[in-house]
Amino acid sequence: MEIKETVKVEEALKLIFENLNPSIQKVRLEDAVGCTLAEEIISDVNIPPFDRSAMDGFAVRASDTYGASHNSPVLMEISEIAGEMKAVPVNTGEKLPDGADAVVLVEDTVQMNGKVEIYSEVHPGKNVARRGEDVEIGETIFEISHVLRAPDIALLKALGIEEVSVFKRPRVAIIPTGEEFKKDSEIRETNSLMLSILARKWGGIPEIYPVVGDDKKELKEAILHAREFDIITVIGGTSAGRRDLLWNVLEEIGTPVFRGVAMSPGRPTLFGVVEGKPLLGLPGYPVACLMASITFLKEIIFKLMNKPIEERIVKARLLTSVTSKAGYRTFTRVKLRHSTAIPLMTHGSGILSSVTKADGYIIVPEELEGIERDEIVEVRFFE
Amino acid sequence: MEIKETVKVEEALKLIFENLNPSIQKVRLEDAVGCTLAEEIISDVNIPPFDRSAMDGFAVRASDTYGASHNSPVLMEISEIAGEMKAVPVNTGEKLPDGADAVVLVEDTVQMNGKVEIYSEVHPGKNVARRGEDVEIGETIFEISHVLRAPDIALLKALGIEEVSVFKRPRVAIIPTGEEFKKDSEIRETNSLMLSILARKWGGIPEIYPVVGDDKKELKEAILHAREFDIITVIGGTSAGRRDLLWNVLEEIGTPVFRGVAMSPGRPTLFGVVEGKPLLGLPGYPVACLMASITFLKEIIFKLMNKPIEERIVKARLLTSVTSKAGYRTFTRVKLRHSTAIPLMTHGSGILSSVTKADGYIIVPEELEGIERDEIVEVRFFE
Repeated sequence: MEIKETVKVEEALKLIFENLNPSIQKVRLEDAVGCTLAEEIISDVNIPPFDRSAMDGFAVRASDTYGASHNSPVLMEISEIAGEMKAVPVNTGEKLPDGADAVVLVEDTVQMNGKVEIYSEVHPGKNVARRGEDVEIGETIFEISHVLRAPDIALLKALGIEEVSVFKRPRVAIIPTGEEFKKDSEIRETNSLMLSILARKWGGIPEIYPVVGDDKKELKEAILHAREFDIITVIGGTSAGRRDLLWNVLEEIGTPVFRGVAMSPGRPTLFGVVEGKPLLGLPGYPVACLMASITFLKEIIFKLMNKPIEERIVKARLLTSVTSKAGYRTFTRVKLRHSTAIPLMTHGSGILSSVTKADGYIIVPEELEGIERDEIVEVRFFE
Repeated sequence: MEIKETVKVEEALKLIFENLNPSIQKVRLEDAVGCTLAEEIISDVNIPPFDRSAMDGFAVRASDTYGASHNSPVLMEISEIAGEMKAVPVNTGEKLPDGADAVVLVEDTVQMNGKVEIYSEVHPGKNVARRGEDVEIGETIFEISHVLRAPDIALLKALGIEEVSVFKRPRVAIIPTGEEFKKDSEIRETNSLMLSILARKWGGIPEIYPVVGDDKKELKEAILHAREFDIITVIGGTSAGRRDLLWNVLEEIGTPVFRGVAMSPGRPTLFGVVEGKPLLGLPGYPVACLMASITFLKEIIFKLMNKPIEERIVKARLLTSVTSKAGYRTFTRVKLRHSTAIPLMTHGSGILSSVTKADGYIIVPEELEGIERDEIVEVRFFE
């Protein structure tokens, strides 16, 4: 396979997607929320399974109530079995007794000595939830590729379904690297925690590895161990001198695909495949790591889960113009004040506080060299 | 306290909010994402803690490199200590050795026999991340009430902070009721699972109780047990005949506040306080339960977490007119097709499939009796 250097974001995504193999798994209902169905769901039951009372009251034969009114009540016997001039007490949701075809509201009755006065006439089916009125046997409930929400899970449970086939939530191995974190306790490795929070939010199941130093053998061992995951991420070690470490390991134990992406920040991002598993090399600088994660890791997780990407976007007027390098997709951090986007001075991809002070970011596309003030831009959020 | 019957949604929310007491808790960073800070964060460290190399290369005294170029390199001794005409190998992120004030990129050097040729001059500070350039000692990092996102957590970790004070995630007790679920295995209780998924999504920590039948003593015991939670929800038993069960228990062991809300579906919603804890009685019909949960439980969780409410809203054109009862806030389920909202026939609040077929809902406000076709409406999503 030809190795690509400094590819455009769109090409990088295309190369990544060509190397993804979504897989399918049976999961319990509780774990299926947010997942995409890999099977069609056809009901093999009726909901309700039988005619049910829709209210608290008395189940009766409707014809026995005809003519009942406030001035001329009908007197019935309270009974456990339905029948002529018999009234069976029922609660909301209970099965309608055989022989009854309607329910008189408890508010429209007066009880005395085992009898009940009915003050209102009902027609057949009144206050009754008919068998199958919610779902009928044979009905298609969800098509393949439906993304399951909370009420969908409730309906599946109502159907008596306990497990469903869904696109598997990918397990994400997060391997932080950097000799400096091992040497100096004042320098803390923070990217792996950030990445694990984001991966979980996007639907993945993250696991953080111990920090790997500048040691090829150690890095190789960590990556080989991480083959059991669905996505392998390695943070850091993608910049100049050390990029070669991860790249060399990839050449030895896998297939390198591209190194370098025309984006800013986030240029030192690389990608390859190790025994069928995608390996994403992310920059160690925290802002670059964040933007490369949003640009690639989020897309990988959503693609493996077969879900359309979700983005929170608001439109805003750009307060001051921003510049960018032509050919690079540029991510500019902004603060939002009402409907105005205020670009933040970006001191470089190492300055995490430039993100924490921002509400979101705007994208300057590759074909532009900036955006003029007062233009309407789309502000995206970091999560 | 005066008991209110069938209050408007806004009044219900006001009465609920008067009875909420947010509490504050120290949590580990990993558990703080999505939480609101209850303390101001002021840094007591610099980030970086010292001047660091921003690139892989050699740390030097900048003045020694003046005049260096491709045609006229400067030769330096490779050393572990900085000094006159000495070059110390450094990796990205490592501490700059004392005496050095700049870094020459490894790409601009050639090494041989313990010496290095420098092909490019650097000025002081070049390729160096200055102490405190990201965060300075004494700087305010986050104000009180900031909602913590993934990069914020990473920055807190970089500051050496392991725990933060946040508004506590409420623990939510979910008590389903209904004799019918105990009597008949074909009728499945599904509201508690739906509610627990939503409560977790909104930031709460849900726990589902076993189904309580039509037994006042059993219901009272479950509620008294649930006092240890921050929010008590009881599902079902709020409709006509059985409403009195929950209401009576509330009268005996707590303070009833209102019963009935002018909303459709969701009317049989009630609220009270048990030993300082809010008790929300939700309708047993699944659609009513869902809409009352979104209208009240979500607001309670966000208020206790001191977070602004989040809603996904898209604008759409209404395909056909919808009608509603004046004085009631009405929730109409719709499908979205591009920018058109198609109202679904609503067969009542018991028909869960009317929700699962919908993409979201529109709200018809109390002062209207419907919305005309072709009007632009706001479609909200169920999660």
